[in-house]
Amino acid sequence: MANPVVGIIMGSKSDLDVMREAAKTLDEFGVANEVRVLSAHRTPAETTDYLKTAVARGLKIIIAGAGGSAHLAGVAAAHSYLPVLSIPIKRDGHDHEALFSNIMMPPGVPLAVMPENGGKNTGLLAVAILALSDKALAKKYQSYRQAQTDAVKEADRKLQAEGWQNSQL
Amino acid sequence: MANPVVGIIMGSKSDLDVMREAAKTLDEFGVANEVRVLSAHRTPAETTDYLKTAVARGLKIIIAGAGGSAHLAGVAAAHSYLPVLSIPIKRDGHDHEALFSNIMMPPGVPLAVMPENGGKNTGLLAVAILALSDKALAKKYQSYRQAQTDAVKEADRKLQAEGWQNSQL
Amino acid sequence: MANPVVGIIMGSKSDLDVMREAAKTLDEFGVANEVRVLSAHRTPAETTDYLKTAVARGLKIIIAGAGGSAHLAGVAAAHSYLPVLSIPIKRDGHDHEALFSNIMMPPGVPLAVMPENGGKNTGLLAVAILALSDKALAKKYQSYRQAQTDAVKEADRKLQAEGWQNSQL
Amino acid sequence: MANPVVGIIMGSKSDLDVMREAAKTLDEFGVANEVRVLSAHRTPAETTDYLKTAVARGLKIIIAGAGGSAHLAGVAAAHSYLPVLSIPIKRDGHDHEALFSNIMMPPGVPLAVMPENGGKNTGLLAVAILALSDKALAKKYQSYRQAQTDAVKEADRKLQAEGWQNSQL
Amino acid sequence: MANPVVGIIMGSKSDLDVMREAAKTLDEFGVANEVRVLSAHRTPAETTDYLKTAVARGLKIIIAGAGGSAHLAGVAAAHSYLPVLSIPIKRDGHDHEALFSNIMMPPGVPLAVMPENGGKNTGLLAVAILALSDKALAKKYQSYRQAQTDAVKEADRKLQAEGWQNSQL
Amino acid sequence: MANPVVGIIMGSKSDLDVMREAAKTLDEFGVANEVRVLSAHRTPAETTDYLKTAVARGLKIIIAGAGGSAHLAGVAAAHSYLPVLSIPIKRDGHDHEALFSNIMMPPGVPLAVMPENGGKNTGLLAVAILALSDKALAKKYQSYRQAQTDAVKEADRKLQAEGWQNSQL
Amino acid sequence: MANPVVGIIMGSKSDLDVMREAAKTLDEFGVANEVRVLSAHRTPAETTDYLKTAVARGLKIIIAGAGGSAHLAGVAAAHSYLPVLSIPIKRDGHDHEALFSNIMMPPGVPLAVMPENGGKNTGLLAVAILALSDKALAKKYQSYRQAQTDAVKEADRKLQAEGWQNSQL
Amino acid sequence: MANPVVGIIMGSKSDLDVMREAAKTLDEFGVANEVRVLSAHRTPAETTDYLKTAVARGLKIIIAGAGGSAHLAGVAAAHSYLPVLSIPIKRDGHDHEALFSNIMMPPGVPLAVMPENGGKNTGLLAVAILALSDKALAKKYQSYRQAQTDAVKEADRKLQAEGWQNSQL
Repeated sequence: MANPVVGIIMGSKSDLDVMREAAKTLDEFGVANEVRVLSAHRTPAETTDYLKTAVARGLKIIIAGAGGSAHLAGVAAAHSYLPVLSIPIKRDGHDHEALFSNIMMPPGVPLAVMPENGGKNTGLLAVAILALSDKALAKKYQSYRQAQTDAVKEADRKLQAEGWQNSQL
Repeated sequence: MANPVVGIIMGSKSDLDVMREAAKTLDEFGVANEVRVLSAHRTPAETTDYLKTAVARGLKIIIAGAGGSAHLAGVAAAHSYLPVLSIPIKRDGHDHEALFSNIMMPPGVPLAVMPENGGKNTGLLAVAILALSDKALAKKYQSYRQAQTDAVKEADRKLQAEGWQNSQL
Repeated sequence: MANPVVGIIMGSKSDLDVMREAAKTLDEFGVANEVRVLSAHRTPAETTDYLKTAVARGLKIIIAGAGGSAHLAGVAAAHSYLPVLSIPIKRDGHDHEALFSNIMMPPGVPLAVMPENGGKNTGLLAVAILALSDKALAKKYQSYRQAQTDAVKEADRKLQAEGWQNSQL
Repeated sequence: MANPVVGIIMGSKSDLDVMREAAKTLDEFGVANEVRVLSAHRTPAETTDYLKTAVARGLKIIIAGAGGSAHLAGVAAAHSYLPVLSIPIKRDGHDHEALFSNIMMPPGVPLAVMPENGGKNTGLLAVAILALSDKALAKKYQSYRQAQTDAVKEADRKLQAEGWQNSQL
Repeated sequence: MANPVVGIIMGSKSDLDVMREAAKTLDEFGVANEVRVLSAHRTPAETTDYLKTAVARGLKIIIAGAGGSAHLAGVAAAHSYLPVLSIPIKRDGHDHEALFSNIMMPPGVPLAVMPENGGKNTGLLAVAILALSDKALAKKYQSYRQAQTDAVKEADRKLQAEGWQNSQL
Repeated sequence: MANPVVGIIMGSKSDLDVMREAAKTLDEFGVANEVRVLSAHRTPAETTDYLKTAVARGLKIIIAGAGGSAHLAGVAAAHSYLPVLSIPIKRDGHDHEALFSNIMMPPGVPLAVMPENGGKNTGLLAVAILALSDKALAKKYQSYRQAQTDAVKEADRKLQAEGWQNSQL
Repeated sequence: MANPVVGIIMGSKSDLDVMREAAKTLDEFGVANEVRVLSAHRTPAETTDYLKTAVARGLKIIIAGAGGSAHLAGVAAAHSYLPVLSIPIKRDGHDHEALFSNIMMPPGVPLAVMPENGGKNTGLLAVAILALSDKALAKKYQSYRQAQTDAVKEADRKLQAEGWQNSQL
Repeated sequence: MANPVVGIIMGSKSDLDVMREAAKTLDEFGVANEVRVLSAHRTPAETTDYLKTAVARGLKIIIAGAGGSAHLAGVAAAHSYLPVLSIPIKRDGHDHEALFSNIMMPPGVPLAVMPENGGKNTGLLAVAILALSDKALAKKYQSYRQAQTDAVKEADRKLQAEGWQNSQL
C-alpha cells in the first residue's frame, strides 16, 4: 500500500463517523491516508510526536477533527508547518464551540476551517491541494466535480418530468 | 523573594493588562507568583516544558489567559495535573470565541473557567484555593471579602445621604 | 463514614443525573461528599444556612449546579469563602442561560465555571484542588489521568488494527 | 415625605444612571420611592433583610437592576412575595448575560423582565400596577401616555412640514 | 361566575398548551380569567376592540402570548394602559425570536416579559399584582410559595434518606 | 397551460418540501409558476442562463431557496433585475447560516428575505406583488386574507364554546 | 407633484437617517413617495388609519422601519394587503432584536425583510417591483444596475493601475 | 515580474485593508500575486471570467474576501477547481454574517475558511500549500515560523527582565 500523504486525526473515537467521510473521499481519489485517534488533551505527547514526524513520514496535509473546546487542529497547526484543515465537530445539542475554537487562530499560525462535521468537503479540499502538483489527480477531481454538476442537472430534469406535485424526496 | 506558587501565563504580551490584575491581586495577599508569555501556538515546546516542570518548581496553581481560539489553558490542563484557571480574553469587537474555546473541555481533563477578562476574580479564586491549607491566608481573604461588603454598604449609605438626584457616578 | 469535604448542591432534584456524576467521581477517589437539594429561589434560608455552616462542618469545596437563570452557585459564592465550582445545567431546548448566569460574576466574588452538564470534570477539579495538600490523592489523580491517556492510546491502536472501514462506534 | 411604595435596588452604584431613570419616572407621577445599593453577592445579608422587611415598611413593588451574571432580581423574587421587576443592565461590550440571568426563572418564582437598561419603562410599569387601585394615578398615567401619542403626532406633522430632505435628527 | 379580571390572549390556538398553564394557575387562586385567541396579524380589529374595552369590562391585567415575530403583547401594550405580561412562545427549533420581539419595547410603552413558555410564572405574577389590594389573595399566595419551599425541603430530605446512588428522577 | 410568471428555484432537491409550499400557494391563486433545481455552486452556468433569460421567458418574480451558506438568492439578485424573494432553508440542527447568508446583501443589489422555511408566505408576497397590476388577483388575495381572519375568529369562538379546559390542540 | 405610490413609515423620527436613504433612492428614480412618523406603539390609531386608506390614496408599496422590538412592519402587513418591505433598524449596541421581530411572521401574513438599516436596497426593491408594470422605470433600473457594475469595474481598473501598495481607501 | 500564482479577489474596494495583508505576506515570501476587485453581485460576469481562466493564466490558489452576506468565495469555489481560501470580512457593528455565509458550503464544493479579517494567516496558508512542491519556499516558511517563536520567547524574556509591574503594552 502507498505511503499515506494525508494524516487524518481525531480527538476521540466518537468522532469517527465524521472523519471517516474524509478518509472515504480520499480513498475514492486514490489518495493514501491514515486515520488516527490522537487527543490534544489526553495524549498530548503522542500527538506532538505524530506531528513532528509528519513530514519525515511523507505526510503533506493534516486533517484534524475535534468537538467542544476543540484544540486538536490548533495543536496540529502549532507543531507542523504542513497545511492543516480543521473539521469542527458539532454534536447534538452543541452550539458553535468547536467552530469558535478554531476560527480565530492568532496571526502567524494559519489554520483552514472547514464546515462543521464536513468530512467530505475536507477530503475534497485535500484533493484540490494535492492536485496542484499531480495532473492525474487534477483530472479525476475535475471529473468528480463535473459528475456532481450532472447529478444536479439530472435531479432538475427529473423534477420537471415528474412534476413537483408528485416528486418524492 | 518567595518561590512562586502560582504561575500566570498568557498567550501574547498584548494580554498583559488583564493578566496583571491577577498578579496584582495575588501580590496583595502575599502569594508569590510569576508571570510568563507562553504561546500554545507559537512556543509550544516552551509551554510544555513550563507545565511539566511546574510541580517540581513548587507551583500549585496555573492561571492561563488567551484570546480568540484560545488553547493555552487547555494545553495547560493537558500537560499538568495542577488546578488550571482559565481567563478567556475578550478583545474589542470579538464574540465569545475564547470562552467557547475553554468551557467545553472533554470529560477527564478539568479546566475552571473564570469571567472574560476577569483577572481579579481569578487571582481571588487562587487565593481561596490556597487558603484551604493556609489559615493566615484564609483570614486575610475573609477580611478582604468583608472589606468589600463594607464598601458596598458605604456606597449605599452615601447614596442615601446625597440623594440619588445628586449622586455622581 | 468520613466527614464530607465536598458539598454538592443542586437547585432542583431534576438536575440529579448531572450532579451524580460529580459525586460518583469523588467516590472513585475516596473523597467524602454529600449531595443536597437546595434552591436559591425556593429554599433561600436553608441554602444560606448550609453555606454559612460549611466551614464549621468541614467542607472545603462547594459544587453547585442549576439550570436556566441559575443563581445557586452565585449565592454559594456570596455566602461562603470556600472555592465554589459551578456546573451550568443546560436542558434540552435551552440556550446558554445557565452559563451566562454564572460566567460574569462581579469583581470580588470569584466563581469557577465548569462545562455545561460537566459533572465529571467538576469532580475531577475538586480532586485536583484537594490533592494540593494530600499526596495520596495526588498520586491517585495522576494514575487516573494516566489511565485515561492509556485508554486513548488503546482506542488508537485498536482503530489501526481494525481499520477505520470496519471500526464500530 | 411620603412613605416609599417602590423600592429601587441596584447591585452596584455604577448602575445608578439606569436606575435613576426609574426613580425619576416615579417622581414624575408622585410615586414615593427609595433607591438603594444592595448587592446579591457582596451584601447578601443586607439585601435579604431589606426584602424581608419590605412589606412591613409599606413597599408594594421591587425594582431590581444588576449587570453581568445578575442575581439581584432573582434574590428579590426569592425573598419577597411582592411583584419584582428586573432591569437587566447591559454594559458596553457585554452580551445578554444579564437578560439571560433573569429571563429563565424556575417555575414557581415569578420575575418580570423589563428592557435592558430600561429604567423608564420599568418606572412606568410600576405606575401601571399601582394605578390598578389608585384612580388619580391611573388618570395621570393615561395623560402621560396620551402626551406621548401627541408628541409622535407632532413629530410626524413637523416632518411633513419641513420635508424629510431638510429635517434634522 | 365571577367577572374576569385577567384576560389571557394568544396569537394562535396552537399556543394553548402554554397559555393554559397561566389560566390553570389563576384558577387555583380563584382569580377569574378569560382565554381568547386574538391575532395581532390576522384579527387586528378584534384584538384592538378587545383591548380598548378591557377596562370597562373589568379586566386588570392582560397576559399575552405569541411565537416567532411576536407582536401581540406589544399591540396589547399599545392599546391598553393596564399592566401587560408577555409570554414569548418558543417552539421547537426556534431561536429567541419571540423574546427579542418583546424585550426591547420603546421607552414609554412598558411591557413585562416573562420566561419563554412560562405560563405558570405569568399566572403567579398576575396573582402577586392582584394581591397588592386583596389580602385574602396575598395570604393564599404566601401559602403557595411556602408549600413550594416545603416541597424542595422534602425532596432534599428524601434524597438524603434514599442516597443519591439510589434516588430516581 | 399558462406561461410561468414566477420562477421557483432551489439549490438542492432536498429543499423541495419547503419550496413546494410556495408553488402550492401560487397554484391556489392561479398564478402560473415553474419549479427548478438550480445550484449556485454545482450548476452555476445553468443557473446564470436561467436568470438571464427569465425576463424574455415572461417571468416576473424569482423565488429562491437554499440552506447553509446559501448563495442562490444572491446569485439570482446579481443576474436578474426582477424582484427576488429569498427563502432561507433552516435544516435540523442548523443555526441561522442561511438567513445571515441572505440578509446582508451589499447596497445596490436588493434581495427580499422571507421567513426561514417560509414557503407559504413567500408565495403570498409574490401574489401581493402581482396583484398590484391584476385586479382579479387582488380580489382573490383579499378574500384569502379575509378567510384567514375568519378562521382565527372561528378558532376563538370555538375555544370560548368548549372552554380552554377541554379544548384540544 | 405626483401622488405618492410608496409610503415610507418609521416608528420614531430617530430612524430618519436610515429611512431617508429609501426616499432618496426613490426620488432618484422619480418614484413619488411620502415619509411619515407612525408608531405601532405610540400612535396605533393613526398607523391603522394610514394603512387602511393606503390603497385608496394610491399607494402600492409600504416601506416600514423600526428598531428594537419592532412591530411597525408587522402592523403594516396586518392592516394592508399591499407588499410591505421591512427595514429592521439596528442601533449601536443593539443585537438582532429588530430583525428577529420581523423575520418570523406567522404563515398567512407575508412580510419581506430587507437588510438591517438597508434604506437604499429597500428603495431599489420597491423600484424593481414597480418596474414590473412600468417599462420606463425598468429601463432606468437596468441603467442604474449597469452603472453600478461599471463602477466596480472602474474601481478594479484603478486598483490595477495604482497597485494595491499605493491605493487609498 | 513573475506570473501571479495566487489571485486575491475582494467584493468591494472597501475591503482592501484586510486583503492587502494577504498580498503583503505573499510578497514577503516572494510569491507572485495579483489583487482584484471582483463582485459576486455587481460584476458577476467578470468574476466568472476571472475564475474560469485562472488555471490557464497560471493561478494555483484563490483568496477571496467579502463582507455581510458574502458570496464571493462561494462563487469562486463554484467556478474553479483550485483551492479557494475565504476571508470573511467582519466590519464594525457586524455579526458573523460573512463567516456564516462561508462556513456551511454544501457537500461537494469545498471552501477553506480563514479567520475573520485574517489576511495574514490566509497569506501564510497559501505559502504552506505552495511550499508542498517548492523546497525553497518551505524553508523560508520554516524560518518565518521560527522567527515568530523567537519573538514570543523574546517578549517573555523581556517581561521577566522588566517585571510585569513596569512592562508597557
